[in-house]
Amino acid sequence: MESTGDGGARTVGEVGERGILTEVFGVLAEHGAGADGLLVGPGDDTAHLRVRSGAVLATTDTMVRGQDWLDEWSTGEDVGHKIVTQNLADLASMGGRGTGVLITLLCEPELPLAWCRDLTTGLARACARAGVPVVGGDLSAAGPGVVAVSVTALGELGEGIPAAVLRSGARPGDVLAVSGPLGRSGAGLGQLRAGRRAGRWVDHHRRPWVDLEQGPVAARVGATAMIDVSDGLGRDGARVARASGVDLVLDEAAVAGLAGRLAPEVGEQDALRAVLGGGEEHELLATFPPGRVPAGWVVLGRVEAAQEEPGVRLGEQELDPSGGGWDHFGG
Amino acid sequence: MESTGDGGARTVGEVGERGILTEVFGVLAEHGAGADGLLVGPGDDTAHLRVRSGAVLATTDTMVRGQDWLDEWSTGEDVGHKIVTQNLADLASMGGRGTGVLITLLCEPELPLAWCRDLTTGLARACARAGVPVVGGDLSAAGPGVVAVSVTALGELGEGIPAAVLRSGARPGDVLAVSGPLGRSGAGLGQLRAGRRAGRWVDHHRRPWVDLEQGPVAARVGATAMIDVSDGLGRDGARVARASGVDLVLDEAAVAGLAGRLAPEVGEQDALRAVLGGGEEHELLATFPPGRVPAGWVVLGRVEAAQEEPGVRLGEQELDPSGGGWDHFGG
Repeated sequence: MESTGDGGARTVGEVGERGILTEVFGVLAEHGAGADGLLVGPGDDTAHLRVRSGAVLATTDTMVRGQDWLDEWSTGEDVGHKIVTQNLADLASMGGRGTGVLITLLCEPELPLAWCRDLTTGLARACARAGVPVVGGDLSAAGPGVVAVSVTALGELGEGIPAAVLRSGARPGDVLAVSGPLGRSGAGLGQLRAGRRAGRWVDHHRRPWVDLEQGPVAARVGATAMIDVSDGLGRDGARVARASGVDLVLDEAAVAGLAGRLAPEVGEQDALRAVLGGGEEHELLATFPPGRVPAGWVVLGRVEAAQEEPGVRLGEQELDPSGGGWDHFGG
Repeated sequence: MESTGDGGARTVGEVGERGILTEVFGVLAEHGAGADGLLVGPGDDTAHLRVRSGAVLATTDTMVRGQDWLDEWSTGEDVGHKIVTQNLADLASMGGRGTGVLITLLCEPELPLAWCRDLTTGLARACARAGVPVVGGDLSAAGPGVVAVSVTALGELGEGIPAAVLRSGARPGDVLAVSGPLGRSGAGLGQLRAGRRAGRWVDHHRRPWVDLEQGPVAARVGATAMIDVSDGLGRDGARVARASGVDLVLDEAAVAGLAGRLAPEVGEQDALRAVLGGGEEHELLATFPPGRVPAGWVVLGRVEAAQEEPGVRLGEQELDPSGGGWDHFGG
């Protein structure tokens, strides 16, 4: 956590709503992205944001302390970075880019104001890097122990993209590919659980860094279906398979290749588990007509007609979509 | 609470994420508003919503159990209704109307599935009445005791309205008016605290019902500033006063007139307190050039050049903006 200045020892309950907002707006002014299209920004009843393409993309995602992060492992700045990445990845997976985010902080009055400032720094830096302004938000007090951060991201399709890329467009004969490596965040989580506190996979788990411009790139070359890997290849792949009514068939050599990058540090078995089931990766998983896979993407397999229930297969073996993935209620 | 069917005894933790979503989508399908402009609805990575006017309004608001409602006083359906009203009132106060909402539920695994269904019913009915589709959302587990509901509302300015009505446009000489009675929700809250469980003010506190179409009406006739009364006339009036750099001067007879409607049931002192400080009313408070106040609005006073710090005065007396109003952290 960064230096907290003289406000560091105070809690959000001590400074109250106005004190928190002063802090938040101060940090945003320091790091904030420019905002050409922002007709009305934070501070009035709503934001008002120009929309150039005739339609707006909208998505929302929440992180909860104790559930989605632990204070022992992640700083407020990590959390701010990650929640923005998660939301922008959802936009990217439609072929879109962010145009604005709204932020909600729900927290116990005992939360240190310094944590709130770190969170805002992470949010603001991640937004600035993506060129996305913070356009509004909300602040609510909650009971002891509760800290939750929600982001709603607004966006638009990239230029020249006629329609959002859905999960449902994969067709037999298509090629399955991913925009980058998989399993880094899962491997990092395993290392954190084992007591490590540093390293490149641990870093990636804390602050996943993904080239989200690959979403519009994939849409432009004709991706037929796309999703970001937030709950694991097995689970997210199964979502595409079910929505499209097809099987996704993973190539064993391709999976082994991805796992091989992680194995030296985490062992072969954990590496394979991280590639197939590791969540919070946020690389983009997409299907393409043959010959259309963009440069830099990793071909993972192919789309086939569903054998029985649509799903993901690794060679001949049906992947359990719940295996290693993530259900918020463990159901 | 309504009949809960055979799923009533189960908790959200028992049925898991998929079980909850099945329930939620079932209720939405039953009550959901039509959605002409919805290119992609719930179920993919993001929603995609047509925008006709070239710009989108966006706002977000959260309700927390124990803070914004008590289960002894309000059902899930009440909460669903109220959170939608709150958000749509923010759009109305810019001169806008809703085009879509995203919903986030953050809750303990022990929450009864029946409560979740009631909440969804309230959300869906309030949205359907306003002609606004539910376009997406998120679901997160939290620690014991936590239930929080967030809504992000998207909207557009009404036809013929060139720009959003801000808080900052009030000018000396303008007339101050409100779109309907004030203090009902505050009076109802007082009655609930005193042990009453029914009555029209109690009902209004549980499910505030406001004609939000008055927002575009006011914008069209040239409202110079507007806000919805969510934290009390004193606090919300002070926001307009500060943003515009003016004083809002309340007419004592007008305030007494509003209080007089409540006094027979709650007494004169509580009635006055509810009118000046009662929150969650969601009527629209606006300033107009003389002669432009729309039919049905109640004239409350006038806008004057600020005497010292911009604020709200009742006759000669400066209103304490924190008096009776609401700070989420009590600061």
